[in-house]
Amino acid sequence: MSEGRYARFSALVGSRLKIRNILTRYALAECLGTFLLVIFCDGCAAQSVLTKHAFGNIMTIHIASGIALAMAVYAAGGVTGGHVNPSITLTMCILGRTPWRHLPVYWLGQYTGSFLAAVVLYGEYYDALNAYDGGVRAVFGINGTAGLWTTFPAEFVSVGNGFLDQIVCTALLLMCVLSIFDPKNMNPSNGLIPIALGAMFTTLGMSFGVNFGYAVNPARDLAPRVFVAIAGWGTEVFSFRNYSYFWIPLLGPHVGAIIGAAIYQLFVGLHFPDSEKKTDESAINGICKIIQYDIIEFHISPFKHVGVTVIQ
Amino acid sequence: MSEGRYARFSALVGSRLKIRNILTRYALAECLGTFLLVIFCDGCAAQSVLTKHAFGNIMTIHIASGIALAMAVYAAGGVTGGHVNPSITLTMCILGRTPWRHLPVYWLGQYTGSFLAAVVLYGEYYDALNAYDGGVRAVFGINGTAGLWTTFPAEFVSVGNGFLDQIVCTALLLMCVLSIFDPKNMNPSNGLIPIALGAMFTTLGMSFGVNFGYAVNPARDLAPRVFVAIAGWGTEVFSFRNYSYFWIPLLGPHVGAIIGAAIYQLFVGLHFPDSEKKTDESAINGICKIIQYDIIEFHISPFKHVGVTVIQ
Amino acid sequence: MSEGRYARFSALVGSRLKIRNILTRYALAECLGTFLLVIFCDGCAAQSVLTKHAFGNIMTIHIASGIALAMAVYAAGGVTGGHVNPSITLTMCILGRTPWRHLPVYWLGQYTGSFLAAVVLYGEYYDALNAYDGGVRAVFGINGTAGLWTTFPAEFVSVGNGFLDQIVCTALLLMCVLSIFDPKNMNPSNGLIPIALGAMFTTLGMSFGVNFGYAVNPARDLAPRVFVAIAGWGTEVFSFRNYSYFWIPLLGPHVGAIIGAAIYQLFVGLHFPDSEKKTDESAINGICKIIQYDIIEFHISPFKHVGVTVIQ
Amino acid sequence: MSEGRYARFSALVGSRLKIRNILTRYALAECLGTFLLVIFCDGCAAQSVLTKHAFGNIMTIHIASGIALAMAVYAAGGVTGGHVNPSITLTMCILGRTPWRHLPVYWLGQYTGSFLAAVVLYGEYYDALNAYDGGVRAVFGINGTAGLWTTFPAEFVSVGNGFLDQIVCTALLLMCVLSIFDPKNMNPSNGLIPIALGAMFTTLGMSFGVNFGYAVNPARDLAPRVFVAIAGWGTEVFSFRNYSYFWIPLLGPHVGAIIGAAIYQLFVGLHFPDSEKKTDESAINGICKIIQYDIIEFHISPFKHVGVTVIQ
Repeated sequence: MSEGRYARFSALVGSRLKIRNILTRYALAECLGTFLLVIFCDGCAAQSVLTKHAFGNIMTIHIASGIALAMAVYAAGGVTGGHVNPSITLTMCILGRTPWRHLPVYWLGQYTGSFLAAVVLYGEYYDALNAYDGGVRAVFGINGTAGLWTTFPAEFVSVGNGFLDQIVCTALLLMCVLSIFDPKNMNPSNGLIPIALGAMFTTLGMSFGVNFGYAVNPARDLAPRVFVAIAGWGTEVFSFRNYSYFWIPLLGPHVGAIIGAAIYQLFVGLHFPDSEKKTDESAINGICKIIQYDIIEFHISPFKHVGVTVIQ
Repeated sequence: MSEGRYARFSALVGSRLKIRNILTRYALAECLGTFLLVIFCDGCAAQSVLTKHAFGNIMTIHIASGIALAMAVYAAGGVTGGHVNPSITLTMCILGRTPWRHLPVYWLGQYTGSFLAAVVLYGEYYDALNAYDGGVRAVFGINGTAGLWTTFPAEFVSVGNGFLDQIVCTALLLMCVLSIFDPKNMNPSNGLIPIALGAMFTTLGMSFGVNFGYAVNPARDLAPRVFVAIAGWGTEVFSFRNYSYFWIPLLGPHVGAIIGAAIYQLFVGLHFPDSEKKTDESAINGICKIIQYDIIEFHISPFKHVGVTVIQ
Repeated sequence: MSEGRYARFSALVGSRLKIRNILTRYALAECLGTFLLVIFCDGCAAQSVLTKHAFGNIMTIHIASGIALAMAVYAAGGVTGGHVNPSITLTMCILGRTPWRHLPVYWLGQYTGSFLAAVVLYGEYYDALNAYDGGVRAVFGINGTAGLWTTFPAEFVSVGNGFLDQIVCTALLLMCVLSIFDPKNMNPSNGLIPIALGAMFTTLGMSFGVNFGYAVNPARDLAPRVFVAIAGWGTEVFSFRNYSYFWIPLLGPHVGAIIGAAIYQLFVGLHFPDSEKKTDESAINGICKIIQYDIIEFHISPFKHVGVTVIQ
Repeated sequence: MSEGRYARFSALVGSRLKIRNILTRYALAECLGTFLLVIFCDGCAAQSVLTKHAFGNIMTIHIASGIALAMAVYAAGGVTGGHVNPSITLTMCILGRTPWRHLPVYWLGQYTGSFLAAVVLYGEYYDALNAYDGGVRAVFGINGTAGLWTTFPAEFVSVGNGFLDQIVCTALLLMCVLSIFDPKNMNPSNGLIPIALGAMFTTLGMSFGVNFGYAVNPARDLAPRVFVAIAGWGTEVFSFRNYSYFWIPLLGPHVGAIIGAAIYQLFVGLHFPDSEKKTDESAINGICKIIQYDIIEFHISPFKHVGVTVIQ
């Protein structure tokens, strides 16, 4: 097959497999993004714990988790913006940036991706798990490994403080997410956004990772918890401390995300002037008029297009 | 409610809450920015100390503090430039870049944001604090935790060396800040500036964090110190070593910031030629002339607009 | 020799040495890129092991390896895209992005560059090696150093799990690589791509580095393995565990890369709409028509050119 | 004084202090850049050693040193390109990119900045030094601190291997520097270049920092060595091992830089086609012709200007 023929064949295959339904595309992108987020986040915890911290520690976990978020957004961002977190999707619906009818599609993709990551991680570290616990899966204790897949509170954390923790963590997450994505604020380029988000997530883990493992993401927390319950660790991942904690990383992030978004909007986001528009309007009368003007500048606006500024 | 109706409702709510007063906007943005700076900076110290360094160490503290600054600037930068530091605001006023009458507004926002961060941190780590010190707050000693909120000098540091340290640290801070923000120098894009600033802050902590905790920011130092004094640690946070040190991280940064800014300006900042302007002036005669020229290039100048260069 | 004369002389020398054959250029660029990747990746392992972890640890290894990839792509990216990995080249051929007849040229450059890096590393750490093992080279054991050049599986890893590991790791690599390079996704600028790739590689090592040393690159694994076999460590680098493992990091990455690329394409890559093209087509009728239109915007498309959008 | 008056006063002061002599500007910028490089590089070593590694370790040193280089280039890059290293300036002269008559000016700035950093560091850590060594300065041994200012070889390194090490390290440095700066390669934006350079320097320290402290910079090595000899440590910083080593970090980098630059140019740098020029040439006949063409694209070339491409 000649080079040209192969290129045509390759393009044909791609075109046959192309999906044009926007909701299916959203679900698939969120699925892949959340898959990457969870597999790296859980993978670094697994590498650290299963080698008794010989090949991992608190630093590798926080840094790898941050970059995991960056990779998730690189994968899904161009399609959906890269929520990869049900509480962010809910908040975006409330803010009017994502249509409400898209919500179930996003959530489906996110929970599915997270579950698939839990499965692949299990295969990837199957031998290591058996070498670590001798084949007897335990949730807690010296050989406990459920914490590689899902989050548990520190011993000293009460229900109230745990719930507050998830609210504070997710509120901080959303303040930073909205700051970074706001085109009227510092406006990092699309290609830089994932890195800024990843850096923020690293910091969140370093500063507020101890109370409840900075879950801040119901999909990342619940789907692997279900997997672990099925795959041999048992229902203790739900029933621990008399079922009084497992719901916190599910409900808390939704509440915290809304609070955080409200704070950013009330302190900064709502108050930007609409001055950019005016620049474009001044050019509305067209190129025939430009001939009469003295200086023409083609400037890149914060919205990433190059507008025409005409200075008389 | 239909999708379209919801979008209109959402836009209406946003428009009702919009603040147009520029000074209020500045205060709110600096408040949110400084809040994010302080809560992450203090949070990483808290996580490290309260877990007896099981979930934090010198690396997590310096890296999280750097990213804390990055997040602060992402949040406030598009409104105020993201000073989040009273000594930087003072310096910007001296340089003529911020009007003197804005100074109190910036400072109000900065000290308020820092105080709010101290309060939220206290709630977030309330259970952890009690588990750590048994409910007995101490400034120094084995169970001392005041250092999570504010800075203290190392034992070996004299008053003179401590004051010099704050001057040197803040001078280095300002040299880097002015380098990074200078549109005639390497000119990182707005979206990259917070990351460069954060990297610098990480280095400052790694290189000069030991003498006096690289406070370099009176708001970050004083407001949480006041909170700690009120919240149960007592006035020892001011009276330690006979009241001879607490003023250093308040006065030192103001002096150091001015010195650092002067050095940058005298070594680099003042001496850039105004050549960019000339490019634009050569195009003043307008587009009718361009038709006579041979090559037209639309180049992106260091000022982030695309100018018109006409080469005859 | 005057300044002007020297400049002409310098330009003349450069022009004489210029290679215009595209395949030679590709081979040389991949050679230099892979050289930089391998020398930094192996160098950080050598520094850590040969100083008994006094000057290196799991963090320095993962971070330096990530940046090693970034530097490799900075060096080769402008010529070839910076594959620096035979399994990526194979995948790009399958995707129709690299012509099949270029494959042997890329591979030649990659394996050569990797071998040269192994040689230089040996010279660089010759004294340190002798101080470490007393001149007696060993593959495994307390003084074993073959692992500085090539990868070996962890003790607990079976052949099946090892093969799965290389597939999973390289599949994750390719999902992220295609996400980062996809001009329709988040589209980082060329200058940012190496940093995003490096961050991903750091995370891969932190999350999945323990089963088989995240080889994920046959050139990086095989060429130094051959060098070590020749240079005094002996054939145990191939024969260990009865020749049942050494082929895994050669075959696994090729399989994993194809799987990972297929997943990215099926979940995200194939489904982007072709809307950008339409913008350009609408401008086909030329500048004479533009005069009749009202608003002209020069926007930077995700393909990094500034197109002309004409809004009637 | 009113706001407007103050702004005029401020502008007047700046204009009076403005230096227009280009060589003086170069010397001052290189001086400030090298000052920042050395003070952070030495500062992180000092913080680590003087606290007996309680507030620093191999990670803080390598990361802070990398960011130190980034800050140096942010400070000086817009004026001189940010060499901050005599061996880079020499290489740029050989490549014909810096005029030979500028060489002494760059070197003067670099050595002066490095010496000033050594002095400031001494003041900054004066109390800490005395607490560490009881006021008795020692070059080597348990209380030896000369290594905070300058570099020494590891015990096992012979003269030959030490010289090779400096050549290899500086050659790697230059390969990466030229890759990053080459506008025809991946071409990071000016604002991103310092970060890429810093990342590279971090990796160099993590991979090849043990033989001879990755000096790779005669100014960074010699000037603080002279300061230390004067300031009380004595001439042992030169005479150690019978004067047979101190010259290596002075001569080696110059040799290595030239070799590294030659390798990059021969493998990649010299062979880029000049296609960009042709695009511009095709537009030479001017805008009157453009009217006859169908598609006009304003694309951003790798040289960071927006050229006019005319497709017939």
